[in-house]
Amino acid sequence: MKGARCLVLGAGGFIGTNLCLALRAAGIDTTGFGRKSRPPPALAGLDRMLWLAGSIESLSDPDALVAGHTHVFDLIGAGLPNSSNDNPAQIVADGLPPKVRLLEACRRQGVQRTVFASSGGTVYGPAGDAPIPETAATEPISAYGIGKLTVEKYLALYRHLYGLEYRVLRIANAYGQHQDPNREQGLVAAVLHRLLGAGAIPLWGDGAVIRDYLHIDDVVAAFLAVAFLEAEPGADASRLFNVGSGIGRSVLSVIEDAARVTGCRPILDRHPGRSGDVAVNILDSTRLQRETGWGPRVGWEDGLARTAAWLRTPR
Amino acid sequence: MKGARCLVLGAGGFIGTNLCLALRAAGIDTTGFGRKSRPPPALAGLDRMLWLAGSIESLSDPDALVAGHTHVFDLIGAGLPNSSNDNPAQIVADGLPPKVRLLEACRRQGVQRTVFASSGGTVYGPAGDAPIPETAATEPISAYGIGKLTVEKYLALYRHLYGLEYRVLRIANAYGQHQDPNREQGLVAAVLHRLLGAGAIPLWGDGAVIRDYLHIDDVVAAFLAVAFLEAEPGADASRLFNVGSGIGRSVLSVIEDAARVTGCRPILDRHPGRSGDVAVNILDSTRLQRETGWGPRVGWEDGLARTAAWLRTPR
Repeated sequence: MKGARCLVLGAGGFIGTNLCLALRAAGIDTTGFGRKSRPPPALAGLDRMLWLAGSIESLSDPDALVAGHTHVFDLIGAGLPNSSNDNPAQIVADGLPPKVRLLEACRRQGVQRTVFASSGGTVYGPAGDAPIPETAATEPISAYGIGKLTVEKYLALYRHLYGLEYRVLRIANAYGQHQDPNREQGLVAAVLHRLLGAGAIPLWGDGAVIRDYLHIDDVVAAFLAVAFLEAEPGADASRLFNVGSGIGRSVLSVIEDAARVTGCRPILDRHPGRSGDVAVNILDSTRLQRETGWGPRVGWEDGLARTAAWLRTPR
Repeated sequence: MKGARCLVLGAGGFIGTNLCLALRAAGIDTTGFGRKSRPPPALAGLDRMLWLAGSIESLSDPDALVAGHTHVFDLIGAGLPNSSNDNPAQIVADGLPPKVRLLEACRRQGVQRTVFASSGGTVYGPAGDAPIPETAATEPISAYGIGKLTVEKYLALYRHLYGLEYRVLRIANAYGQHQDPNREQGLVAAVLHRLLGAGAIPLWGDGAVIRDYLHIDDVVAAFLAVAFLEAEPGADASRLFNVGSGIGRSVLSVIEDAARVTGCRPILDRHPGRSGDVAVNILDSTRLQRETGWGPRVGWEDGLARTAAWLRTPR
């Protein structure tokens, strides 16, 4: 990590905020790039942490943004899995060209490595009950998943053409501190927030949808591992990694567990199921564990309790 | 095929022209859509063959184009594998959104089935010497290949969301009558044309690049098979098929064979190799053979001789 200078795109979001905090805690100079004119409160006033406001869609000079950084983390989302299907063409028309222009800037500016936050929950599509390895077929049922997959393909193309090194993390459902409980994404934060007094919990379908939940500290540890850990000389390192707990939990069981941990009684607000949701999604992260020594450290109930404590803290 | 009414997009091109001729020969009402104001000579004046001029990028009303057709064949390319890497963002920015708008129109207009011409030579990427099955990993090394793959993903998404039925053909290197020998694509036509008097044969790299060549009559037969052949009731039909000969031929051996068949002596014009070329690409078309009874019918030397005869015919 010595001499590293990191650029985090989407730094104002949930994963971005936590990643910036971890990079600064590791002593790494960090630039955060996000839509808001000021950094999120957690990053405000941090030493050796620069904030740049903007959007990659309207960036006139991507080279100027990227210049001087050794590592670029792309956490910029493109809508939500479900709403992406309302206008499926939009993700390719609006979301992808700025990403490719950014890759162009990275290779021109000699960036050492880019790390892309892909989506373990959408790129595979319907895949059965077993934990999914990286070698599984990729058959997304949302334009969001297609968009993520297409960026992955471009990363591989740029390495092939120009030697621009990259890593892809196909991330499970992250939860924990700094997740906005009022956004559509993030079941755990939404559930805990409502349990702690914000009202009824919206439930799409029968609550049987199964996902793999991973605490944000473990997600951030995976980013640091793939960004800075070098493979043994001569070994051909993987570039694509699942990041999950390997454990499937239904929406209803998350609500039950969160109710138990907080001691609050849930009230449900039921809605019809959504087309972009696969029934089951559990990730097999053996590759990441084997190649980097990474492993989930935060237990489920502990993670829930810590998230509830963070939500209770006045801000 | 009874009651079918076909729309062929990209009907002025090599595969499009041959497909329209085959559809008309089978008695099917056909609309050709292409950039030129008039149909290619081979289609001019054909009975029950309508010609519409335009480009999908500038189409104001895709529904009006699609309406009244049962089957839509999408043969519209998006540049060439190699030049696509000169501006990798362009394919997603310019090429994909019109394709997705077209799919929207197809599902709104109740099209029964779309058939998409994908690229067996680019979607897989570097894949070794053995014939590649459809289940192989897809790791394109050209933006062209990424563009084709992304359209495939959208087709699967539209089937999932709306039940719009589709078939994808991942086609090998097609050759035969109606291929323009002066375009960058199409080795066989280019080689035969030069052998027959048009000058030196351009050769990129050392001529060791191996491809799978298939006569256009066999390609067109595959389109008809996947468009109109229904699976047995209850059977889950495949939607994605390789279409190739299963035989690999080097560029140099194609030149040798073409020289022998025509009795002409080749003169080579050498250029450096190109980044978007994989070394070997041979397709395993067992699935198409098994599920539809399709098989290559035109032998290699016979196909070369017929193509040479077509090129010699004054037009």
